[in-house]
Amino acid sequence: MKVAVLGFGNVACATIENFMANQELIASKTRTPIELVRVATRTPGRALGRVPQGCLVSDDCWALVDDPQVDVVVELMGDVQLGRELMLRALSNRKHIVTANKALLARHGEEILRKADEVARSVLFEGAVAVSIPIIKTLRESAAANHVTSITGILNGTSNYVLSQMSERGADFATAVAEAQRRGYAEADPTLDVSGEDAAHKLTLLAALAFGVPIDFEAVEFEGIEGVDGLDIAFAKRLGYRIKLIAQARMEPGGFSASVRPTLVPMASMLAQVTDSMNGIALQGDLLGSAFLYGSGAGGRQTASAVLADLIDLANRGGGGACNKGFRHDQCEAPGACDCGDRVGVFYIRLRLDDKAGVLARVSKVLADANVSVNELLQDGGHDGQTDLIAVTHDISTRQLHAMLPELRIAAGHGHSVVIYPVLGEH
Amino acid sequence: MKVAVLGFGNVACATIENFMANQELIASKTRTPIELVRVATRTPGRALGRVPQGCLVSDDCWALVDDPQVDVVVELMGDVQLGRELMLRALSNRKHIVTANKALLARHGEEILRKADEVARSVLFEGAVAVSIPIIKTLRESAAANHVTSITGILNGTSNYVLSQMSERGADFATAVAEAQRRGYAEADPTLDVSGEDAAHKLTLLAALAFGVPIDFEAVEFEGIEGVDGLDIAFAKRLGYRIKLIAQARMEPGGFSASVRPTLVPMASMLAQVTDSMNGIALQGDLLGSAFLYGSGAGGRQTASAVLADLIDLANRGGGGACNKGFRHDQCEAPGACDCGDRVGVFYIRLRLDDKAGVLARVSKVLADANVSVNELLQDGGHDGQTDLIAVTHDISTRQLHAMLPELRIAAGHGHSVVIYPVLGEH
Repeated sequence: MKVAVLGFGNVACATIENFMANQELIASKTRTPIELVRVATRTPGRALGRVPQGCLVSDDCWALVDDPQVDVVVELMGDVQLGRELMLRALSNRKHIVTANKALLARHGEEILRKADEVARSVLFEGAVAVSIPIIKTLRESAAANHVTSITGILNGTSNYVLSQMSERGADFATAVAEAQRRGYAEADPTLDVSGEDAAHKLTLLAALAFGVPIDFEAVEFEGIEGVDGLDIAFAKRLGYRIKLIAQARMEPGGFSASVRPTLVPMASMLAQVTDSMNGIALQGDLLGSAFLYGSGAGGRQTASAVLADLIDLANRGGGGACNKGFRHDQCEAPGACDCGDRVGVFYIRLRLDDKAGVLARVSKVLADANVSVNELLQDGGHDGQTDLIAVTHDISTRQLHAMLPELRIAAGHGHSVVIYPVLGEH
Repeated sequence: MKVAVLGFGNVACATIENFMANQELIASKTRTPIELVRVATRTPGRALGRVPQGCLVSDDCWALVDDPQVDVVVELMGDVQLGRELMLRALSNRKHIVTANKALLARHGEEILRKADEVARSVLFEGAVAVSIPIIKTLRESAAANHVTSITGILNGTSNYVLSQMSERGADFATAVAEAQRRGYAEADPTLDVSGEDAAHKLTLLAALAFGVPIDFEAVEFEGIEGVDGLDIAFAKRLGYRIKLIAQARMEPGGFSASVRPTLVPMASMLAQVTDSMNGIALQGDLLGSAFLYGSGAGGRQTASAVLADLIDLANRGGGGACNKGFRHDQCEAPGACDCGDRVGVFYIRLRLDDKAGVLARVSKVLADANVSVNELLQDGGHDGQTDLIAVTHDISTRQLHAMLPELRIAAGHGHSVVIYPVLGEH
């Protein structure tokens, strides 16, 4: 099986290096020998002496995807538009694809998968989500007999590191981001990570696999951690929760929902134990019940592990037929996205109030009028004539929540914030 | 793909029932349709109306494995000797095998795998270990490019339930076992589970997959939880640990080690969060770093999920070649078992002592003479003229430990117990 790699950045370099280092082990586990024949990179000089003997290095991506001897193209450049074009061309040339490019797949996965089905070739991407956790294979294969009911994950290591620093060290957002940058967990521009967009890319793929729905980035709502206040982290802690950036896809009665949001997670749950830059994913299926998987979400070697596993899979399955099965459920009617108003859940609500008599009564009336019952209530001793009132609701619908929001804002008074986060049950 | 099932107990029944219930979903994910054509059970009457139309039910196991139309035999009887003979015969007839029978595979896996390689057929057994956790597939496929350095698991739900009851409720061993029986977590005779033998069966399979060594039950040392004292659970808690029945296989400098033992696990580790009857497995590889997987270890539906996933795998890979790759590392020299004296680790040592002056000095001298340095020391206010002295060591070799044991017994004094458990690092 002749393999060609697009890119020679951190991940591509680690993949090639570890393919060479663990070559004997890999050969012992593959029926068809894997051979690295070609690399394309903008900086061919970097690759000198760092690829197997006989491997051609050039700066011509197009020649690589057109090379008739290549069976598998490993796309590790990370570019969305160029990546899409190269993948489609490689598929036209009947090559299998292995990639770790979540942004590309979240936005153009349907088009690419359709093309792959047409030419009976595989697109594998274990390295695209939570690299040390075999979640793609678990959803596609291990849970294949299950109706998956929910998938709930911490899918962005940078955000998790930032929230962990804020929670454990009392750091503010800017300080925590700077520390993440210093440690190499965050990019110079951290927006993609802290905005929730990266986690939403990954959730797009997981939701498609879990529910057999089309890959549709637009169906995933996301909100980042830029606005998370240390105050809410502290209140959550007092109530027995940690605030995590949670990506969740669920089957609701009316369809599926998928969203990424700062969320309160019960301290005793497995997801709450996922700290620093780690990733964790809880999975529920009608047969398997609950499972939870934990590991690194990034790193050159870790991503190499996933990419090489995909290559070994291709080598052992015989390049023949496509294995995109498990992605589309051919014969089942795919469920649609649910009306989000119907979604039911528990919410954390914090109101900043003027510390005056009658304020609690006013808020209580708003909740009662909206038929929202409260599970826990916490009022923080005021300061500067203001006080924080925190309510954790029982199950309510998003519709109920939105309906009472204007009244809550009025009750809170002019210029005061109303903070709302969903609350997870035990996982 | 024509499938026949041996057995109609809890797991077989759940497998067939859920195959029928989720038939449309399963069909949508398989390239070759899966058809259940035959069941053999001692009580054919039980299966009436509970198998698909046209499926033949009889009490003749031998006719089933000899039936020329059958492509895959699913062995769910649980019997070791009869199971072995039926599997070998089925393989002679060039049928693939799917099984959840860990005792059989731990004891006769080498013979069965050798036969399977001979006839180029697959033996799949995701249901044999920690059913809701795809650990077999993870080791065989997802971690295939890794040199696995250790695998550490809670693999027996019954023992974990018993220890959890002892730890959380202060129940004694007998009461906790009775409660486990009442809830259906323990058999009438709980020996196989609480003795560590069942976990050792499972570890035998995981070690073979992780290190590419032969399946050899004799290479796994095991000790059960029957002797675990509530006192040690309480002391461990004071020191920041939980006592768990830990199955661990590790690559040591001189080879691999594999053992099942009551072990102190740091409270903050993922493994310590595995309570009640759940299973959890921590995995370390040279590329992937650390991963942790958690889920149910038993249950009809959960096992059905794993067995059906194996069937879907067979249907999608085309019955052709064997996929026992990943089990033996053909071209690598398999490492041998290490000399256990060389194993290095941290130990918890509890000595029951007469509460007299000079006793601590005597024990300290034994430790110093053996060159054992102590990380934590705890002495419990005495009662009845006796006191407990607990030492948690720094890293020492098993050889050092055994060398000082006779002196420790002398220091403890006549008739007094010396309790020793290994201590895990953070996972």
